[in-house]
Amino acid sequence: MIYLTRREHFAAAHKLWNPNWDETENQRVFGACANPNGHGHNYTIWVTVKGEINPETGFVVNLKDLRDLMRKAVIDQVDHKNLDLDGDFMQGKISSTENLCMVIWQALEKGILALGATLHEVKIAETENNTISYFG
Amino acid sequence: MIYLTRREHFAAAHKLWNPNWDETENQRVFGACANPNGHGHNYTIWVTVKGEINPETGFVVNLKDLRDLMRKAVIDQVDHKNLDLDGDFMQGKISSTENLCMVIWQALEKGILALGATLHEVKIAETENNTISYFG
Amino acid sequence: MIYLTRREHFAAAHKLWNPNWDETENQRVFGACANPNGHGHNYTIWVTVKGEINPETGFVVNLKDLRDLMRKAVIDQVDHKNLDLDGDFMQGKISSTENLCMVIWQALEKGILALGATLHEVKIAETENNTISYFG
Amino acid sequence: MIYLTRREHFAAAHKLWNPNWDETENQRVFGACANPNGHGHNYTIWVTVKGEINPETGFVVNLKDLRDLMRKAVIDQVDHKNLDLDGDFMQGKISSTENLCMVIWQALEKGILALGATLHEVKIAETENNTISYFG
Amino acid sequence: MIYLTRREHFAAAHKLWNPNWDETENQRVFGACANPNGHGHNYTIWVTVKGEINPETGFVVNLKDLRDLMRKAVIDQVDHKNLDLDGDFMQGKISSTENLCMVIWQALEKGILALGATLHEVKIAETENNTISYFG
Amino acid sequence: MIYLTRREHFAAAHKLWNPNWDETENQRVFGACANPNGHGHNYTIWVTVKGEINPETGFVVNLKDLRDLMRKAVIDQVDHKNLDLDGDFMQGKISSTENLCMVIWQALEKGILALGATLHEVKIAETENNTISYFG
Repeated sequence: MIYLTRREHFAAAHKLWNPNWDETENQRVFGACANPNGHGHNYTIWVTVKGEINPETGFVVNLKDLRDLMRKAVIDQVDHKNLDLDGDFMQGKISSTENLCMVIWQALEKGILALGATLHEVKIAETENNTISYFG
Repeated sequence: MIYLTRREHFAAAHKLWNPNWDETENQRVFGACANPNGHGHNYTIWVTVKGEINPETGFVVNLKDLRDLMRKAVIDQVDHKNLDLDGDFMQGKISSTENLCMVIWQALEKGILALGATLHEVKIAETENNTISYFG
Repeated sequence: MIYLTRREHFAAAHKLWNPNWDETENQRVFGACANPNGHGHNYTIWVTVKGEINPETGFVVNLKDLRDLMRKAVIDQVDHKNLDLDGDFMQGKISSTENLCMVIWQALEKGILALGATLHEVKIAETENNTISYFG
Repeated sequence: MIYLTRREHFAAAHKLWNPNWDETENQRVFGACANPNGHGHNYTIWVTVKGEINPETGFVVNLKDLRDLMRKAVIDQVDHKNLDLDGDFMQGKISSTENLCMVIWQALEKGILALGATLHEVKIAETENNTISYFG
Repeated sequence: MIYLTRREHFAAAHKLWNPNWDETENQRVFGACANPNGHGHNYTIWVTVKGEINPETGFVVNLKDLRDLMRKAVIDQVDHKNLDLDGDFMQGKISSTENLCMVIWQALEKGILALGATLHEVKIAETENNTISYFG
Repeated sequence: MIYLTRREHFAAAHKLWNPNWDETENQRVFGACANPNGHGHNYTIWVTVKGEINPETGFVVNLKDLRDLMRKAVIDQVDHKNLDLDGDFMQGKISSTENLCMVIWQALEKGILALGATLHEVKIAETENNTISYFG
């Protein structure tokens, strides 16, 4: 069993906001992250898959296939978008990095099985200081 | 003459949009950066000042003073904000990194003179790949 | 179960020295790290906690709370200090990164439980080339 | 049980090529990586070992010993070399990062036991975007 | 006048070799870099252009145009290539980073004028430790 | 004229302290940096030299020669040392990064002329956020 990790980047706007709370409560809990007009980040995402080495290629999966899957299933849905207002990727969910991580897991899991490997970890850095990991 | 550079970070939402153009023209010129609901970045900013070394301290300027100035004059104006909708920092300007760089120069120039040094460069990275510098 | 990692930095002086050995033996084992007047590092620390996502906030823990805990329990004890001479954080222990890692685990474990999560890993980089991890 | 990771770098040329395939098939599967004259990388390698802390030194292993082992068993075999043409380190294997990772595991496993610790992970980054890990 | 820098990466094989010298002299001067089968690097390149801000766009140049130019004029010529054996980009020149830097300057200078800006600097990092700059 | 930059690292302890002031005044001006038992850093240093390309080698200077010079004239004087107490490198000077930068310039200037190039810049990062440059 060998593990392959591919990194991608995307830039998105969002705000942290619980629609069941008033603005005061949102500000108290989420601080500057609840700024009504939003703010944004350069997110970095690492996707780790695991599997056996294919003896014909020396690969777990072909990186071109993993890159294409990540771009179609994730990057195209979120890059240069507003996570709260554009599309339905995060619909009905607070756009915390934790929730984003789980949504991306669901968006990738089947496609990676179709490549002959298993999704092991989705990791997202919102900033260089704060990172979220999900192992399913 | 010695040069001191201090780095800070901020996260902001924005879109690239010329209000004199229609949506088609904005999309043609600015591409995904013109997404109507905005997108965002973790900006990194480096401010370089120059001056003589004060023999009593060994400093050009005290880093605490430069940090306080950068936070009050710049970071508090833009961090976790929407550059186009919040406050008047970028008012009437397209929020390109080039324009942002010149506005930050104006916001810092006098305060750095008051610290006994001269502003030399404002550099901003919108992403790790794209950086803007202004020398006044 | 989701994992959240927060990074902090601190700068400290120390030396590697076993008081039961003479200077020759300390130099033989610890090399330049046994320089009698000490040396120092910019340490980077990553603290990983795990837990369930709170549906009201989308968070495992509020990053502000984790940051406050890390600063109070760790950074304030070691930043701009001499690990061997200041305070009692490392008292009676050789200030290797391995020992520092275990002491920081003990300093954080209960506070993270009080935030509703579980401490998963303390990782410390003494330099960009050398890193220590402890999982309890 | 505590984990220590040491990072090293090396630069090498290689190409991805299955000798059982013709050039068309190699280009189809490996793309630009099958360029007949080869290409190259700055590889970064992280070796993680685990063990108990020695109370006399505060160390799992002495970093000088781990560095010497990594340089002799790995870096000297591959740095400023062509992985496909020089020496027998990768002989008979497609020089994918996956295969390189397993070969490096075999080159280090016994030497680390001789230092009193256990090899836990070999991780290699071919570029900043693509990383392979092997845990034995 | 404002300065814009764009970063790109490429991976290439090469060796340092003066064809007027024998192997002993090449090894003496170039060391491991003269390994006959070559070695390789992940090169990072930063291209800085300067100009006035276009008031309609807020841009010095459109980053998409600069990226397209860099990819067509430079990256496509060198990425996943052998600098000494493939194409004529470095023909007749020792493939030192110094020479590579000057060749890339010549490959970009006119195209950047056509974008309405002036080439200011070509910077190349062969490794994280060694960087070359050329200002024309 | 072409510019070559080489990066090195060193770890040292120091404190900021003006011996003409009492402890209260030192704490007021230098803050935590005046901690009596010292603190320390991983310093990063970049040395930039300029010159013409030697047509026989394609080099401004041979990197091995520059590395040897930097290690002998600088790194061996300061690495794993206390800048205030060990040797005479910083004798009689407050160990600010500004003063350190000028002392390193003096330690390198003649040796670089002897290599056939001219010293252009000494840059030192005390932390990732704070950097000092000196151009002579």
